[in-house]
Amino acid sequence: MDRAVFEALDREDPLGAARAAFALPDDLIYLDGNSLGAMPTRVPARLERVLHDEWGAGLIRSWNAADWVSATRRVAAALARLVGAHADEIALADSTTVNLHKLLIAALDLRPARERIVVIDGDFPTDRYIAAAIAERRGLELQSVAPDAVEDALDDRTAVLVASHVSYRSGRRFDAPSITARAHQHGALVIWDLSHSTGAVPVDLHAWDADLAVGCTYKYLNGGPGSPAYLFVSRRLIDIGAASPIPGWFGHDDPFAFTADYQPAGSADRFLAGTPPILSTLALEEALTLWDEVDLGEVTAKTRALTERFIDLADTHLVPLGADVASPRDADGRGGHVALRHDGGYAVMGALVERGVIGDHRPPDLLRFGLSPLTTRYVDVWDAVEVIRSVLASGVWRDIGRAPRVP
Amino acid sequence: MDRAVFEALDREDPLGAARAAFALPDDLIYLDGNSLGAMPTRVPARLERVLHDEWGAGLIRSWNAADWVSATRRVAAALARLVGAHADEIALADSTTVNLHKLLIAALDLRPARERIVVIDGDFPTDRYIAAAIAERRGLELQSVAPDAVEDALDDRTAVLVASHVSYRSGRRFDAPSITARAHQHGALVIWDLSHSTGAVPVDLHAWDADLAVGCTYKYLNGGPGSPAYLFVSRRLIDIGAASPIPGWFGHDDPFAFTADYQPAGSADRFLAGTPPILSTLALEEALTLWDEVDLGEVTAKTRALTERFIDLADTHLVPLGADVASPRDADGRGGHVALRHDGGYAVMGALVERGVIGDHRPPDLLRFGLSPLTTRYVDVWDAVEVIRSVLASGVWRDIGRAPRVP
Repeated sequence: MDRAVFEALDREDPLGAARAAFALPDDLIYLDGNSLGAMPTRVPARLERVLHDEWGAGLIRSWNAADWVSATRRVAAALARLVGAHADEIALADSTTVNLHKLLIAALDLRPARERIVVIDGDFPTDRYIAAAIAERRGLELQSVAPDAVEDALDDRTAVLVASHVSYRSGRRFDAPSITARAHQHGALVIWDLSHSTGAVPVDLHAWDADLAVGCTYKYLNGGPGSPAYLFVSRRLIDIGAASPIPGWFGHDDPFAFTADYQPAGSADRFLAGTPPILSTLALEEALTLWDEVDLGEVTAKTRALTERFIDLADTHLVPLGADVASPRDADGRGGHVALRHDGGYAVMGALVERGVIGDHRPPDLLRFGLSPLTTRYVDVWDAVEVIRSVLASGVWRDIGRAPRVP
Repeated sequence: MDRAVFEALDREDPLGAARAAFALPDDLIYLDGNSLGAMPTRVPARLERVLHDEWGAGLIRSWNAADWVSATRRVAAALARLVGAHADEIALADSTTVNLHKLLIAALDLRPARERIVVIDGDFPTDRYIAAAIAERRGLELQSVAPDAVEDALDDRTAVLVASHVSYRSGRRFDAPSITARAHQHGALVIWDLSHSTGAVPVDLHAWDADLAVGCTYKYLNGGPGSPAYLFVSRRLIDIGAASPIPGWFGHDDPFAFTADYQPAGSADRFLAGTPPILSTLALEEALTLWDEVDLGEVTAKTRALTERFIDLADTHLVPLGADVASPRDADGRGGHVALRHDGGYAVMGALVERGVIGDHRPPDLLRFGLSPLTTRYVDVWDAVEVIRSVLASGVWRDIGRAPRVP
């Protein structure tokens, strides 16, 4: 196997043209789209219009004239297609953290007699913090279980399972339909965190019979740093009165009537709270237009192929140099990034970044490489592994100090 | 009195030069900066750099290389000066609605034995919704009192008063030091909503002996539509453990250590939740640089003068045509906007907007005119009243239909 094989894969890639729509420096192999997706080149022109024409010249009138008032709804509709939901089941709001807080309280309100919130060992910290804080306030048990023990942990005492569909560390992907079915057998609800899933692996909330979900838009959806998050509430839960604990005016059925009493919107928009960040929302809207012509089957197939190639090369070239593959070998159980474990930890990643291979590090010893299907070439996989091999073989990483921490 | 008097006031205005830093169409008299402040002309260039150089070229590295990681802290420090707080008492986070939710729960946790939340009749709906939802969840009484009855309503059963410092409708400004002192006499806490205050009228949280506050940045601070909100937590409440009910990773003392247990930051940043919206945050940071060289005493003096002139002209020209001045006549009891009451309600505002005078309407019959001190000229006041007079005198507003509602 040599680089020519990867060049051939790129030539045959039906998504090969997508990369041209993104700003990506020539001297980088950017494998961190699972932390911050690359910038779609059409975003700056859109924001310039928003700034000059809408905010600058239109001022307050732009809420109607430029239809800012529908911006979150439009983005929700675009996201709905990507996750297999009805548009009215999606809301664009706040951060993933705040959305999880809202949905977990809403879920617990629907299961008042139950005593337990289940989370997964090693899941993303902010999700754990939110679940732990709510469990403590409500006098519930927080049960943290090993990834392999999730289904067995669900029982008639379980109120809600909070789970990342794809683990931020290992990239392990859970069997969402099976876990959801098991939860429902016991009358429990599931909140899926789709932050590391949407735009990389198959997400079909209706097929999963999903209850609730949250997700971020700045990873595989390229919405920009800290772009607004989304949430999903199934129609059946809206119909039985799922309610936000933060009933802000934008979640009101008629926000600009300024009524003293709160009447929730009939859709997932009832989980909106305050005024949405319009600049960030419209940057995201522009970014999502790139998905209009994308075949989602091709996207998820490319994720499989890229991660498989990366793992194959890692087995051949990196395992002998002290790296372990920390991600699942079964593609159906894997997300869009590959994690390697190496004792060098941050220092190895520091050496890679110096050499133009941008992945990231998660303490203590994980190196993550995100293979965003719209922006990653097969040759990037080949070239990255070559650089990693060279860094590990030479030991140059031993010269790298401890560095500042980043998301 | 004629227009020449107002032209002379503009010539003598020490803040007269500030307007040049904002994008304001020549054919508008923009008196809605209390809903959406005008765009500082330096914002687009900053965002272009952020997009191309930081997101586009820097990618994930910009969290450190462009110091995105400190962005909310830098903005918090800039805001601290404007509200009379220590920088570590301010956090830039989420929306005003979400921040009020967090601070009200934190306040109630500090007053567990008390049974009542006090709000003010006619205060901003989202603030009421939040207070009502929390009161219901905790089994507390929500007491809504008339504006004149606030101090008398505070007693030993009061846990927290939630109050806009300046009412979004009438522009009435409350005596914050006096009300805070009264609350403290009874052991109660006060959360001030500064959305209609900061950047227009004196705000000095230390002088007020304030406990907690929230506020938005898209009105008098010109942060852009839906720009991030801020909150204030006094050091004494941080010291006794004031805690966010939404303990997200950005509020952690060491967010990027990814620890399983939550350790709150030592500052008001413990009230941060998810990843901040960087584009909106940096637009706001750029906007706030305009305040660096502004004398806040000149700002608040100009607010007084503009609103006083507006009211004087309204008395002379508009009251005889069926408009009432709904804002306080005592400048110390008034904010930065003047509200007129007229039976024509929305239709009158519609006719004004058609004629280039942009204020806004609050149901059923209030017309609001925001006189942002950095962007409003004295002649704008004169000219606006002339247009209002002409619209009311001619009755053209009767031809305007019902229009879409906007924030």
